[in-house]
Amino acid sequence: MFGRIDHIGLAVADLDAAIELHTSAYGMPLVHRETVTEQGVEAVLLDVGESHVELLAPLGDDTPVGRFLATRGPGLHHVAYRVADVGEALRELREAGLRLIDETPRTGIRGSQVAFLHPATAGGVLTELVTPVEVHP
Amino acid sequence: MFGRIDHIGLAVADLDAAIELHTSAYGMPLVHRETVTEQGVEAVLLDVGESHVELLAPLGDDTPVGRFLATRGPGLHHVAYRVADVGEALRELREAGLRLIDETPRTGIRGSQVAFLHPATAGGVLTELVTPVEVHP
Repeated sequence: MFGRIDHIGLAVADLDAAIELHTSAYGMPLVHRETVTEQGVEAVLLDVGESHVELLAPLGDDTPVGRFLATRGPGLHHVAYRVADVGEALRELREAGLRLIDETPRTGIRGSQVAFLHPATAGGVLTELVTPVEVHP
Repeated sequence: MFGRIDHIGLAVADLDAAIELHTSAYGMPLVHRETVTEQGVEAVLLDVGESHVELLAPLGDDTPVGRFLATRGPGLHHVAYRVADVGEALRELREAGLRLIDETPRTGIRGSQVAFLHPATAGGVLTELVTPVEVHP
């Protein structure tokens, strides 16, 4: 059901330093930058193979990523897998007994459809499902 | 320099349950299983796109993954990126000021060459470099 790793999400305290690390030292092109007010983050996407690294800097202390940084510090925050249809994947995973954070898909970065699985039944891993918007130029 | 996400490493307390989650619910084929005594883990690789998920179950409490589980619980443990030559990548990253855990490559799972970067200068992320063995049948 899961086609690839869409991205890994990293919680960062210093966004400029994290961009410098990933672009200069690691050689990953920066491909997108977006402030997602409803999620309380500034997000930066870098390319690596068929996947991305997503840097997540909190817009304030009282945001999910702000609280994550306060308790665990910067580092690995979540993993996102590519699926063909987030809504269908949610139905199958709910039937398999998994606990969902999002009962229905919502709009994520770059207009993608996304939903999160709860870590409690996902091996302790905050797990995201992503279906990107198909671009027809 | 980093060509793709080679794998994400997950610390697991219950290996059978983690295998069931990833193969049945997530639909990832199990492709390799190996006990790495010197690292104190039983490792299982699952395919997802051009990458793997690596499940890491500790062989005892007094191992790196055993201590990780005791303090942080199961979940995301590290990320590994594919590079053409681990030794050359280590030289470049050392020159860029990064702190290395492994000063020279060592042999990892399936005969690959691997080395770890210290989280302190890698954004809080335990980061692995991997060059797989080329198979010439």
